[in-house]
Parts: sequence; structure tokens; C-alpha cells
Amino acid sequence: MLNRLVGKENVLSRLEDRICYAYDGTKQKCIPDVVVRPHSTRHVSDILRYANEQEIPVYPRGAGSGLTGGAVPVQGGIVLDFTQMNQILEIVPEDLTATVEPGVVTQTLQNEAAKYKLFYPPDPASAAFCTIGGNVAECSGGITGLKYGVTRDYILSLEVVLADGSVIHTGRKTLKSVTGYDLTRLFVGSEGTLGIFTQITVKLIPLPEKIETLLVFFTTPHDAVKTASQIISNNLLPRALEFIDKSSIDCIKGYDQEIQIPENVNAILLIDIDGKEASVKTEVSLIEKIALENQPLSVVYAKNPKERDTLWEVRRVISPALYNIAPFKINEDICVPRSRILETLNRIAEIHKRYPSLKVANFGHIGDGNIHVNIMYNRGDQQRVMAEKMIEEILRTTVELGGTISGEHGIGNVKSAYVPLEIPPHELRIMKDIKNLLDPKGLLNPGKIFV
Amino acid sequence: MLNRLVGKENVLSRLEDRICYAYDGTKQKCIPDVVVRPHSTRHVSDILRYANEQEIPVYPRGAGSGLTGGAVPVQGGIVLDFTQMNQILEIVPEDLTATVEPGVVTQTLQNEAAKYKLFYPPDPASAAFCTIGGNVAECSGGITGLKYGVTRDYILSLEVVLADGSVIHTGRKTLKSVTGYDLTRLFVGSEGTLGIFTQITVKLIPLPEKIETLLVFFTTPHDAVKTASQIISNNLLPRALEFIDKSSIDCIKGYDQEIQIPENVNAILLIDIDGKEASVKTEVSLIEKIALENQPLSVVYAKNPKERDTLWEVRRVISPALYNIAPFKINEDICVPRSRILETLNRIAEIHKRYPSLKVANFGHIGDGNIHVNIMYNRGDQQRVMAEKMIEEILRTTVELGGTISGEHGIGNVKSAYVPLEIPPHELRIMKDIKNLLDPKGLLNPGKIFV
Repeated sequence: MLNRLVGKENVLSRLEDRICYAYDGTKQKCIPDVVVRPHSTRHVSDILRYANEQEIPVYPRGAGSGLTGGAVPVQGGIVLDFTQMNQILEIVPEDLTATVEPGVVTQTLQNEAAKYKLFYPPDPASAAFCTIGGNVAECSGGITGLKYGVTRDYILSLEVVLADGSVIHTGRKTLKSVTGYDLTRLFVGSEGTLGIFTQITVKLIPLPEKIETLLVFFTTPHDAVKTASQIISNNLLPRALEFIDKSSIDCIKGYDQEIQIPENVNAILLIDIDGKEASVKTEVSLIEKIALENQPLSVVYAKNPKERDTLWEVRRVISPALYNIAPFKINEDICVPRSRILETLNRIAEIHKRYPSLKVANFGHIGDGNIHVNIMYNRGDQQRVMAEKMIEEILRTTVELGGTISGEHGIGNVKSAYVPLEIPPHELRIMKDIKNLLDPKGLLNPGKIFV
Repeated sequence: MLNRLVGKENVLSRLEDRICYAYDGTKQKCIPDVVVRPHSTRHVSDILRYANEQEIPVYPRGAGSGLTGGAVPVQGGIVLDFTQMNQILEIVPEDLTATVEPGVVTQTLQNEAAKYKLFYPPDPASAAFCTIGGNVAECSGGITGLKYGVTRDYILSLEVVLADGSVIHTGRKTLKSVTGYDLTRLFVGSEGTLGIFTQITVKLIPLPEKIETLLVFFTTPHDAVKTASQIISNNLLPRALEFIDKSSIDCIKGYDQEIQIPENVNAILLIDIDGKEASVKTEVSLIEKIALENQPLSVVYAKNPKERDTLWEVRRVISPALYNIAPFKINEDICVPRSRILETLNRIAEIHKRYPSLKVANFGHIGDGNIHVNIMYNRGDQQRVMAEKMIEEILRTTVELGGTISGEHGIGNVKSAYVPLEIPPHELRIMKDIKNLLDPKGLLNPGKIFV
């Protein structure tokens, strides 16, 4: 039947093909019964109508780079691979909008927009390969969140296929619109559990004229955190304000000998400043002045785009480098009010003392309070169980400090058990009721968000 | 019973008191059965529980400045007057957040934030007297929408009392959060029909160092629209980019002799540029250059805040001045993709030809495509009916051109009949189902959004 709906060349049933769709960034393994590659809204609609009649679960999938299992077919069924729906349908510079299919790679949209001197700001670390559809599903953030906000702030309207195959359009391609309830943002961040996007209209803004980059080395995390605070209290919003802790630094050193990091560095701030040429210059001086007041070991500038790329390499290699410590990694994604960052890092260090055989590395978007706590562990059930216990303690502490268990990665199936730490039963009941309203048979990405 | 719940000093039952709560900015008149002034979340919760048991409609009200009837008690019942819940509970500069009660006047929050060099950007024309609660209910926009977005972009978390009196908390006081569905933005813009806000946490940003203002007079609207387009295509986002048409200009002249407007002016652009001192200077020069290429009659600068205020007076007097034309006014609030503005204005002029006894004045936020179309008419049912027919034509045309029937005023009861022009039955069904889920007895602000 699926062959009839989308053509047999778009239906993958062989085990060796299906295995490729069993994973995402979390390294879980759940082999789907079949993979379908839609080319149009019509295809998606037909597949969902069929799946609804037959009561088959459906899992939308972009690049499979998610970090919480969003695309993993945990209950078997159909994986919808959106890589063939990867067209930028229009960029309208005069309206500051672009309309794209969900399979467009985020960086492709950024690059195409840049040709018109326009900017699509959300910038997850995976921008080079993740897709806009996945970004909308998870409400991705990234390094530009402090200054530019997150995916939800840039979505104007959506074409959505519902569980029964019907197609709706939410929002308008206008910069303002308040007619009726905000269904658009109900779908943003819903992780494919309420409907499946087939067209996405985003807001663009003017491309900043200039980006400057600074790397500042500190002997203590306290100095780095203080510098970050003072930058913001001096009325500056950097495009990026990234923090890297000692464990992460040690990994980088071992991973890439090219990267020069002085001795005794225990914390790094990586700062991008963007905007009009005239103001960037002033801001860079001011930030340097602030940094110098906090006993840095040194401040390094990028003098050109190539040097900028080299400085950012420090940040980019962290994730792969962490596997040098131990073969397994859980990448957490807590976000706290920025004033609680130092307290949060201290509390994590306290918790870590109770799990001495595990390794912890913290890095991330200190500007918006979003810290990636990485827990590395060795093979074996005991290690895994310990890592999970430690994570539960960290998440519980985060919520206690006014934070959230997920700043930008979403919940998926890997964090669904922890949702009740943050969301009380009554709020959760409302969310489940909404899910039930839009997907009464529970066929859209089952097993995600809710346990 | 209400006396017992909130104290009799907070319950207004006399006709002369209740009459004051029969109106909002739309000049409808529906006298409520009783007015209650809560002082706490507990009060609101107790009142809603009681109203739910007794099946009494409840209408939340801020300053009653809404333009679509949002606060008008159209089916009788209890008006909840939030003017006593007007405390700024905290401003946390380090976190870039503020938490307020719903009755705080928008400008009060703006002013208090400015003391910390922080900025709450949403800026409706009524900012001097409207309340944040009303802004959140309607998802207010205003003059800063092009550069800074609208109310929804600044709401981080809400305390909401539901129809049954239960209290929930949505979102977190963090700059990023993606745990579960985005209930926060489901409530933003829901016009008091899904729940009643008792605490609101907003995001703040650094206060711009400098604002400069330009007023540009043109002989044709075409030149003004072209200038606005070229400003944006030159990679500039002004803080405000306001358009005023000939009818509005004629009214201003008759209303305030102090305001100097040259002969033959048929369109005005009023432009605010803000940001870092260094970049504002460059941007002003560039905008002046663009304006001068489009045959302006003259360009006027504000040299200081006082002059800035004088230039803005031109924009501020339009609304009251329009009553010089005719005693009745309907202020529409369409928003189109910016590339369709000239076409929209032309189509409105075409429609106007069929209603020669009505007067039309257009002004508004040309930068984000949000035009306030004002229709003035004289006393008499025939005139009113004609005005309503004309509005329906304009709204139909707006939707045809890819626009929305409400950019920022909301739907209320005055535009609910037109909602089906924009929202198809299936999407409307989903919205009604959500309403039914959260307010099964239909007691929260009945008669609004949906017919």
C-alpha cells in the first residue's frame, strides 16, 4: 500500500536500510518496520491517513542528529525520512521571510539567506547537518540564544499534517498576527507528537555587518562567570558567550595538539560580538576591558575569519573530544536563571563527589544560562545506572534553583521520566489532553515527552 | 458570597460603579452584574471557583483600553478589575527578567526597567495607561514590532488561574526552556478565554544607548512606501517606521495648529533609529540619504528629546483628531506581508469608491506591514451598516493578499464574525476544542474570538 502511495523507490523495507534509521544522536537502537521518503505534502497526508486507519506509529525524521531520541522509532512502525523534502521554496527579502520544506539543512538556509544579506539566527551546534524541521520540532536554541532568541521566535507559519492525514495551516506570513489562538507555537517544540510539518515560514533579519571573536583564558571558573555577568550588566549582548570548564579543556588538549591553550587555564570564555561595524569596535574594547579586570591569563583576538574559525575550533572539538575520557556520554542540557550559574556549577561539583568513578564536563551557553553537563562513563550496567542516578540528582537540583531540565534539546524518550520533576501533574494533564485532542490514537511519535 | 471571598470593599454592586466597567476602547456598553477587585492570586482563584460552581461568566479587565471589546462583559456576570494587582514583584537585572502582576501599566514597567538600563520593548500606542495583563491577553504589538517583535516574544512564564479556580505555572524564568508543550504562548493572545493571568515574567534586554528621530514629508504615498522598503533592503531595522496618509494628515492640521506640516504633503514617514551611539549616527545618515533619493518635500530631525517628542506628537494626535471628521470610528488593524502594502492601500482606495459617504484614514506600522485602517462615519444605522460592509470587504481583501485581519488588537467580540475569513473550519475546530478543554462551561470571557 505504501508503495502505491509514494512509489516503491521511496519505501525502504530491507533490514540493512532500516538499520540506518534506528539511531539518532543518543545512540539508541530501535529498528523501524519500514522507512518512507515523502516528496510532498500530499505524500505525507496519504501516509498519515493510511497509518491512522491501520493504527501504525509514525516517526518524523530530519537528519537524526537529535540528542533526546526524538527521531528514534521506539515502538516500531513507519519512519518518515524528510531528507527528500529539502527545497527552499522562497526567500522574500522585502518581507524578511523564507518558506522552506522541513528537510532543508539549517546551514543551507543560513547560507542562502546570507546571499540576500539576511540572517536566520537560530544556530544549534549541529547547524551544518541538522534540518529546520527537526529544529522546529525541538525548538532548537544554540549559541545565539542570548542575543537573538530561539527557533520559536522565528517561526511565522506552518503547514502541518495532522494524525488523520488532514492538512492545516497555522499563523500567517506576516510579522504580526493575533487572529485566534497561537497554534504555531503550540506545534513548535512539540517534538513531532502533535502533527508533522511540511512547510515552514521563518522570519529573517538583516545580516550583521561584522563579527569579532575573543577567547579569554581564566585560572578560575569564578572569574569567567563574573566576566560574563559584567558583560551583560554593562548593557552588552554578545552574539555568543560560551563557557568551557577544566574537564572540557583537558579533553581538548589531548584531542587536538594544534590548539594552543596556556598552562593553568581552568575556564575559558569564547565571545562573538556582532552588529554594525562602528558599534562592534566599541563593544570589543569594552569587553576586553571587563575581561582584563578579572585576572585573565590571556585574551586572544581573531584578526580575520580564518583566525575566528580557529578560535571556534576550541568549542567545536569538545563534544567528540569527550569520548577520550570514556566511551559513553550523556549530554544534559539544563538552563538556569543566569544569576544561579555559579551556584549550579558548585552544586554539580558537590553531586559529582558522590559519583567519583564518573567524569563530568560542563560547557555551553553561559550567556543564557544554558549549560551542557556531560557525564562520561564506561561500559557496564553499573556505570550506566550510576550515571542515570547522578543525572536525576542534577536535574532535581536544577529545578530547585529555578531552572529547566531542557533548554534546547527537548525531552524525547531519554528525558521523559524526569519531566515530572519540573512539570506538576495538573500542567502535565493539560499537555496530555492536548495531545489526545490532536492525536487520539497516539500514533505520532509515541513514547516521546510523556511516560 | 463574593464579599466573603475578597472583602466587601472590593466588590462593586451599585449601578453607578458598574457602569464604569461597561465600556472599553470600542465604546460598546454592557453593564456587568458585579465588579470584583482581586488583590491576590488567592482572590482570583476563589472567585473563579465560585463562578464555576454558580456558572457565572467572568471577564478579566486591565485598563479597559482594548480596541476589540476584550474586556466588555457582553453576557453579564463578574468583571474582574485587575488595577489593584499592580505590583512589580521583581526586576532581576542579572537574569534580564522582571516578574509583575497583571495590573502593572506597561509604561510603568518600561520606566522601572530603564532605571536598570533595561528595556521592555513592546510598545502599544496606549502604553501610558494600558496594562501588561491586557497586553499578554491580546499579544499587543506597537511601534517597535519590526525591530523588537511583539509581546509573545518577551513572555517567559505565567501564573494562570484556570476556569475551575486551579492555579498553574507555565514556562520557566529562564531564557531558554523546551520542557513539554509551550502552554505559555498558548495563553498569550488567548484574550482571557483560556485562563486568567495573575503573575507574568517577562524578558528584558539592554536599553538602547541612543534614539534619533526623523520625520519625512512626501508628495505621494508611493514615495513613502518606496523609502520604507529601501530602508529595510539596505539592511536597516528602525526601532519605529510609521506611515501616515493624506486623510490623517488633514485631520492633524485641523486639530493642532502647532504642528507644522508643509503644503502638498500627502504622506509622512516617522522614523526612530536606536542602538549604540556609534551605529545610530551612521544609520541616520544612511536613512536620510535613502529618503532624499525619493523626492521628499523635506526631512526634519529631532535634535533633542524635546524635539523628538514634538515630532511624535504628529503621530499621537491622529487617533483623537480623526473624530473631527465624523463622530464614529472603527479602527481596523490589518497586517500584510510588507511587499503588499502599496497594493493593499490601492485596493482599500478602490473599495472606498463604493462607499463615498464614509471617510477613510490609514496610518500605522508600515515597517511590519501593520496598517490601521480607520473608517469614520456619522450617526445612524445606515452609516454603521455601510461601515461594517466596507470593513468586511477590506478584511476579505487583506486575507486574499496573504495578510491577517488582526495584527495586534485581537479579535474580541467586534471582529469575531470575520475570523472565518482567515481561519478555515478545521483550524477553528481545533481552537474551539482547546477552549472547551480548558473552559468546558464557557465562562471565561464568553462571546470573544469565536461566534
